[in-house]
Amino acid sequence: MTITAPERTRVRTDDRAHVFHSWSAQAQIDPMPIERAEGSYFWDDEGRRYLDFSSQLVNVNIGYQHPRLVAAITEQAAKLCTVAPGFANDARSEAARLIAEVAPGDLDKVFFTNGGAEANENALRMARVHTGRHKVLAAYRSYHGATAGAIAVTGDPRRWASEPGVSGVVRYWGPYAYRSAFHAADEHEEGARALAHLRDTLVVEGPHTVAAIILETVVGTNGVLVPPPGYLAGVRALCDEFGIVMIVDEVMSGFGRCGEWFAVDHWDVVPDLITFAKGVNSGYVPLGGVVISRAIAATFDDRPYPGGLTYSGHPLACASAVASIGVFRDEGILEHARALGRDVIGPELRALARRHPSVGEVRGLGVMWALELVRDRKTREPLVPFNATGAAAAPMAEFAAACKQGGLWPFTHFNRTHVVPPCTTTPEEVREGVAVLDAALDVVDRYYTGE
Amino acid sequence: MTITAPERTRVRTDDRAHVFHSWSAQAQIDPMPIERAEGSYFWDDEGRRYLDFSSQLVNVNIGYQHPRLVAAITEQAAKLCTVAPGFANDARSEAARLIAEVAPGDLDKVFFTNGGAEANENALRMARVHTGRHKVLAAYRSYHGATAGAIAVTGDPRRWASEPGVSGVVRYWGPYAYRSAFHAADEHEEGARALAHLRDTLVVEGPHTVAAIILETVVGTNGVLVPPPGYLAGVRALCDEFGIVMIVDEVMSGFGRCGEWFAVDHWDVVPDLITFAKGVNSGYVPLGGVVISRAIAATFDDRPYPGGLTYSGHPLACASAVASIGVFRDEGILEHARALGRDVIGPELRALARRHPSVGEVRGLGVMWALELVRDRKTREPLVPFNATGAAAAPMAEFAAACKQGGLWPFTHFNRTHVVPPCTTTPEEVREGVAVLDAALDVVDRYYTGE
Repeated sequence: MTITAPERTRVRTDDRAHVFHSWSAQAQIDPMPIERAEGSYFWDDEGRRYLDFSSQLVNVNIGYQHPRLVAAITEQAAKLCTVAPGFANDARSEAARLIAEVAPGDLDKVFFTNGGAEANENALRMARVHTGRHKVLAAYRSYHGATAGAIAVTGDPRRWASEPGVSGVVRYWGPYAYRSAFHAADEHEEGARALAHLRDTLVVEGPHTVAAIILETVVGTNGVLVPPPGYLAGVRALCDEFGIVMIVDEVMSGFGRCGEWFAVDHWDVVPDLITFAKGVNSGYVPLGGVVISRAIAATFDDRPYPGGLTYSGHPLACASAVASIGVFRDEGILEHARALGRDVIGPELRALARRHPSVGEVRGLGVMWALELVRDRKTREPLVPFNATGAAAAPMAEFAAACKQGGLWPFTHFNRTHVVPPCTTTPEEVREGVAVLDAALDVVDRYYTGE
Repeated sequence: MTITAPERTRVRTDDRAHVFHSWSAQAQIDPMPIERAEGSYFWDDEGRRYLDFSSQLVNVNIGYQHPRLVAAITEQAAKLCTVAPGFANDARSEAARLIAEVAPGDLDKVFFTNGGAEANENALRMARVHTGRHKVLAAYRSYHGATAGAIAVTGDPRRWASEPGVSGVVRYWGPYAYRSAFHAADEHEEGARALAHLRDTLVVEGPHTVAAIILETVVGTNGVLVPPPGYLAGVRALCDEFGIVMIVDEVMSGFGRCGEWFAVDHWDVVPDLITFAKGVNSGYVPLGGVVISRAIAATFDDRPYPGGLTYSGHPLACASAVASIGVFRDEGILEHARALGRDVIGPELRALARRHPSVGEVRGLGVMWALELVRDRKTREPLVPFNATGAAAAPMAEFAAACKQGGLWPFTHFNRTHVVPPCTTTPEEVREGVAVLDAALDVVDRYYTGE
């Protein structure tokens, strides 16, 4: 499999001529080819190696090219690649059983999709039909996918171009102690006030008109916002009080990312619906889905569920999920992720914060962390403004460039860099990456204007 | 890979306990396990063989387990399973180039998705941003997918449970000579009147408010409705006249199904956007996408495209598409599909119609055909009512059961059975299937009440 220089050139020219890329101005990008990858690293077409602190789009939870998943895909491909949703199939049955086994409470049926957006689309549909209500409460600073239903409940700028969208979405503010919408003094007060705000919003909307509250258990791309203690239990209680379906989006936070099967496990909260994708099989084959409580599943026992897709329960995707869950269990991925966050990533990032004034806050758990970069720790002025582009975003672009030059692929968003490597990353690799961040933060410190 | 009896039982019990199936009342189904498949056949868990006249959900265009696709998946899995949309990758570049090569006109950029629904979602988004308009004209008797944006433009009962949905969808009636909305006497008049109706609808809606007209080139699940000569060119002319984006949904009709790369080729019409999925890689790995005209792609040269998904351009999926297009070319799939329809399926189905009064109409092209079943050829009363379920749908259920008992897996919808086997099906296999249809139509003839 030696690749020749003309072939390498062709990858780039064909990309520029024929590939239309997500979320991009097509003439302003120069996508770097990835030629191979292994474990926590990938290589570009010039043989340059990058330690991946992004897990691609926070999906390669068990690292690149895990031999057990590659073998499972190979075996299933030879056996049976595709089967329509109306049939049963061994890979599909086993994947559903394993996911039900690791899901909390009585969530024991799985509707498979191709990814997270479709998972959220279907969770919303289930909630609406189950309750007979239309409205959905969705949080600012959230991302739930880019299909019309998923983008409508998304609370970040990626929604703007897709409006007007589906009606009946009511937005609320979630907890974010570092930049509190509630003038809270600390995390405890932030949680309490966020719950009071959520209740107030429900009351003025008419709780009996609300089908669901949807939230990311730990907010992902919009900031690695870890909910304060008691917050999720409070949302659960509000849903119980008013007969509202609690949907948690664990597309990013699930399957080891937060050191648990699902991040809700960290707070012992059982939602009604969990949506997943990414980490379930590390994205080796497109797969997502909804794990469904018994009560909601029962709604569709004798009434047809009004949704579907051709590749629901795709055998190749399901076989890779079966292998992935096996890897999680046999290789102790959850335990590793938990310890890595607690003993290595957290302490190392806090050490960075002590060395760099521009690090305003360090937060996270498991293998899901963020550094909030600021120009002033006192005013908390972000390094770059909300949704900045072009020149306004230059300091973050310089930071990212410095990381890449140091052999680290970062995940940056607004004024933050997230630390979201594969859950299988070793402590040594984390330290290698943190050293690169350390150097790159020197660049950021130059913009610091505080004392 | 010998499967034991207890393992077989477990596939069924796990399915019933944990798999939530598309479009179904979960307690009223008993999904049959598919254990293996090859070419035009699949086998259940009791070793019973079925000739597949459905291609699963009209996706297995090159038949089951084609060795070249299995090899491509195996090779790519060993090389690199997943890469985020922001990078370039050899499999992605090559798939995009090959699809651009086979697409008509100047449609030469590809936005990859996981399936057809997301493809339509993104085509609608491109059209809206490109034109700066919001409204979309969509046809009754259509299916475009089940995410909120795709189901909103769907013109069949599957939409009903998802309303109210996205605003700004205006519905029109497409041509369907056998059950004309326009009281047309023949196909020619039907096409002309359908175009006049479309123009009238545009005029009263304000053509300058309309971003796109979306249609299935050949309407799929809602009837295999082949457009009359001149109809598609007429739609193209209307779009040109008013600066409206013409989106053709070729999720089902593309990649050989109609004997062409895209069904529009049959009429030499070049739309602005083509959506695809299914046949592009026969569904071996979830994949769909949009092929984009230069003018629309240019809109996003310096303005970020406001959409995306984690698995856009998934290497495993793209590698299978590359192999599939190679198979189409090297094995003459298009030529085979064209000849099979013209010389075998068409004549055989017309012979069935001569023997069975309940066959009201035979229509189709390539490997995409329908038999419209009626109680009376004169009144054209359908064998079962529109959207019938339960007892009202019993005659169709009896027909399907007779097919299955005869070793044929049919594709039935409302009062129709579609004949949509893999495009690679041999003439002998078609005749084998038609013989089973012949016997099953005896059951249907008993409901015939005409002269």
